This record gives sequence, C-alpha cells and structure tokens, in this order.
Amino acid sequence: MKKIRAAIVGYGNIGQFVLDAIETAPDFEVAGVVRRSVSNIPAELNCYSVVTDIDQLENVDVAILCTPTREVEKYATQYLAKGINTVDSFDIHTGIADLRRNLNAVAQANGTVAIISAGWDPGSDSVVRTLLQAAAPKGLTYTNFGPGMSMGHTVCVKSKEGVKNALSMTIPLGTGIHRRMVYVELEDGYSLDQVAKAVKEDPYFANDETHVMQVTSVDEVKDMGHGVNMVRKGVSGKTQNQRFEFNMSINNPALTAQMLVSVARASMNQKPGAYTMIEIPVIDLLPGDREDLISHLV
Amino acid sequence: MKKIRAAIVGYGNIGQFVLDAIETAPDFEVAGVVRRSVSNIPAELNCYSVVTDIDQLENVDVAILCTPTREVEKYATQYLAKGINTVDSFDIHTGIADLRRNLNAVAQANGTVAIISAGWDPGSDSVVRTLLQAAAPKGLTYTNFGPGMSMGHTVCVKSKEGVKNALSMTIPLGTGIHRRMVYVELEDGYSLDQVAKAVKEDPYFANDETHVMQVTSVDEVKDMGHGVNMVRKGVSGKTQNQRFEFNMSINNPALTAQMLVSVARASMNQKPGAYTMIEIPVIDLLPGDREDLISHLV
Repeated sequence: MKKIRAAIVGYGNIGQFVLDAIETAPDFEVAGVVRRSVSNIPAELNCYSVVTDIDQLENVDVAILCTPTREVEKYATQYLAKGINTVDSFDIHTGIADLRRNLNAVAQANGTVAIISAGWDPGSDSVVRTLLQAAAPKGLTYTNFGPGMSMGHTVCVKSKEGVKNALSMTIPLGTGIHRRMVYVELEDGYSLDQVAKAVKEDPYFANDETHVMQVTSVDEVKDMGHGVNMVRKGVSGKTQNQRFEFNMSINNPALTAQMLVSVARASMNQKPGAYTMIEIPVIDLLPGDREDLISHLV
Repeated sequence: MKKIRAAIVGYGNIGQFVLDAIETAPDFEVAGVVRRSVSNIPAELNCYSVVTDIDQLENVDVAILCTPTREVEKYATQYLAKGINTVDSFDIHTGIADLRRNLNAVAQANGTVAIISAGWDPGSDSVVRTLLQAAAPKGLTYTNFGPGMSMGHTVCVKSKEGVKNALSMTIPLGTGIHRRMVYVELEDGYSLDQVAKAVKEDPYFANDETHVMQVTSVDEVKDMGHGVNMVRKGVSGKTQNQRFEFNMSINNPALTAQMLVSVARASMNQKPGAYTMIEIPVIDLLPGDREDLISHLV
C-alpha cells in the first residue's frame, strides 16, 4: 500500500504530537519537517529530513500546518498552489468562513484540498454540535471548555510586548460562559498593568472575564490537560426536552494532532476545494476497508 | 424555495413522529402517507393524501420508510427503481453491510439515493462512534443503552406461549453489559415460572441477566423514553488516557423520526448510491445556507 506522505510544518507543541500520530498511523509516513531554522534539531527528528522550505522535501501529499493560527493562511495558500493538500487547526471562529472561501479558490484552481479548523474545537466538537442540531433542530447548545490551557489564547498572550512566557487557562462557568486566567512571566522593564491591558483588549479576550497574573515560572503551573462539556436540550419534531451531552477529558495538543492526522487522511479523498470538518464524512477520517468500518462502527 | 416532497411509508409509532418532524421542517412538505389500508384514517392525516401505493402520490422526492425493519429492503428496492430516494432506520446490525450493497446497486442504476440505518443506533450514535475512533484510534468504546424499552426483546417475549402483553426494558450495567427487566401480562391458566423459563432460555436473553415479573397492565408501565451512555478511553498518537463520553436522554421514536427527516434532506445532496450516516457530511443534515451554518457551528 502506498503510504500518505505528510510534512509537518512547524515543530512546536502541536508539531511534536503530530509526529507521534503519524508514527502510529498505519497508512502514513513522515515526508519531513519544515522549520524556520535547521539548527538545534531534537533527537527524535534525527531520522527525518528537517528543512526550511517544503520544496526541499520529496513527494509531499499533505502538509500538516502546526504554525501559529495567524500564519495558517499564508502557508496554506503557498502549499495549495504547489499541489500539496493542507490541513490546519485555525481557531479564530470569526475568521473561519473567510479562510475557507480564500483557500477554496486557491485549492480549486490547483486541484488540491484544504481541510481547515480541524482540531477539536473548532474540529471534532463542530461535528458533534452539527449532529445534535440535526437530532433536535430547535433548542440551545452550550459548549463549555476546560479547565484547561487554551493554546490559541496562550500564543496570543506570548505575542504581547513584554511577555517572556505565558499560560492562558480556560475555566468553564456554564452555559458557554468562561473565565480566562492568564499567568505571565514578564520581560525586565515591563509592568503587569501594561501587559494586562494589551491582553484584555485583544479580540481573543475582549468578551470574557479575564484575570492577568504575574508568576515567576509559567512552566511550574503548566499542564496540557483540557476538557469539554457540550450540552444540548432541544426539540425533535414536536417532542420537547430531548437531552444530549458530550464530554471529553483530554491532552489538548495530542488530540489536536490526532485530528489533524485524521483529516490529512480525509484530504486524500475529497474533491479539490476547502472544507471544514462538518463537510467531511466521518468515515473518511479512518484508515482501512470501508465495508469493514461500516460493519464495525454503524 | 422548492420544498422537498416526502412520503411517509407506514404510519405506526415512527410514522406519526415523522409527520411531526416534516411539519416542523422549513424545507419539507408532506407528499402523502402510504398505508396498507386507507380505512380508519387518523384525524391528523385529514389534510393529506393517504394511499396504498406510492404511485398514487405526485412528485415524491424521498420516501421515509417507517415499516418494520425486515420490510425495508423490499420497499427501498421498489422505490429507488421508481426514481424516489429512500431513507430508513434498519436496525439489524449484522445486516447493514448487505443492505447497503444491495440498495447501492439499485440506486446507482436508477440515479437515486438511499440512506440506510439512519435512526439513533444505528444512526447518530454511529457518527459519534466513528468520530471518537478518529480522535483516539486505539482504545475501547462501550455503548450502554437505556434505561428504555427494547422493541426486539419485547416482540420476542410477546411471542412466548401464555403471554398476553409484554415489555422488555434494557438497563445499562456499564461496559456494554445490560440487564433485561421483563414485565408480562399473562393469559389465564399460565404460570409466571413457565413463562420466565421460556424467556430466559431464548437466545435473545440467554446471555444477559434477566428478571421476569408479572404485572396487571403493561400499558401502565410503558414509557418511550430511552437513553445512551457511550464511553471511549483511548490513545491519541502516543498519548494514553484520552476520555470521551456521549449521553442522551430522549424520546425514542421522536429522535428516530427526526434523524430520518434530517437524512431525507441529506439524500437530496448525495451522488446516486446507498450510504450509511457515517458516509454523509453532517452539514448535509441541516437546512439553510452553508456558509451561515459553518459560521455558526464550526
């Protein structure tokens, strides 16, 4: 069987877990890792090509983008135009429709496939949310996150001037309301007030109760577990009070990485264009014989 | 907007709830109801065509099969050949792959679409099961049912000599193990011991902890609520102990009916062939503008 050749683009938190997920997938092989620099290569990459430009890798089927969210569009646009599928976990909810429209044009023009916003939320949670809306079309769904580290929010805080290291924890308050607890290590010469203001004004934080605190070591308070509690109460036909609940307690980057590898597989099976996970049949996420999967899972 | 014209085939428990779901869907209209006989038509059908043959209805886009499971293939085969899409909630797990293969041939030959086994289990649960396998490819999923009435087990008990009426309740004991609580009304001259022995020896019950009790009225203890508790603990990449849980507490025929109407909508959007729900993008289950759905649900 010809294996799917995947490039890992960006080798931070997510990238490392993507390597785990590729190495354990029966139908994938690592085409290589794209980094800003090829110095300081970690030991686990010794047997792989590590490059600064994806053109230096051979026969890449799909690029798994593990870059910061705000760089996804730039890399995806380049790679789709080169004939390489892309998958990402772009997580700015308000930007998803635009990203999809922009990448769809590039992908269709180049015969490639992009699957966007394919982590766990947006991502696998989106599939459950959509399914529950179909099961009970009238009603309310609340997605409650945490307690856990938000990687998107953490990256956002780290990007602020004067921040040496940061951790943004999401605390569920019920009915989809969250508190943001932000822990920062400051660079010399910066004040907590300055940084707190910049954080609270960022669109990532502007709508939530946010507390910014200074710590001496972010590493000592960091854990990568996360959780979801999604609740829907609604109406099927004319029958009220149908209740649904979806819970997860997970290692965050590990699940994001696994979903990215699963959608990388699915990307090989779609017509050219850009898709979110709710537009992809879930069977395409899995390896193996289709009839076999149907017999075991339906 | 042209509405999707759906025929309801069979008007028992499920059929009545399908009518509710069609009447509340913004993009559907009732093409009519197909029954074995047109006598004793219930009042709520007065404004609809009730016929014994689907050919007597005009412009049917999709037939929603609310017949007993064992008659699904017969009706679906006929209707697909007439150019009508079909959807069903066929629930004999071991027969799903065969039904799909058979209907796929008919559907492809006639440019129609069948979506099979599209209730809640098999059905919406199958989508969650598949998604969780993609999220944590190694591990175990347990689907725990109930407390709720099992139709198949109830029919089995009713077939025993001396049983006037019966109800078999499924009680979840965890890890996919279930207790059967059986309530029977006896015919005169039969003893509970006799009937209990016959029930417990039947292959339907032989492997489960089963309790048989006599009641004066089965109707008084019957309720159509049901539940599911699906649990997966597994491995994402190389990260152990990823935990997922899906719970429902629902009216059983109401949810089955709503899923049938949702997949009837999706049937209008697929290429000719037969599909299970895990082969259908979940977005196709919903009415409305696609970009709008993506903005709200992803």
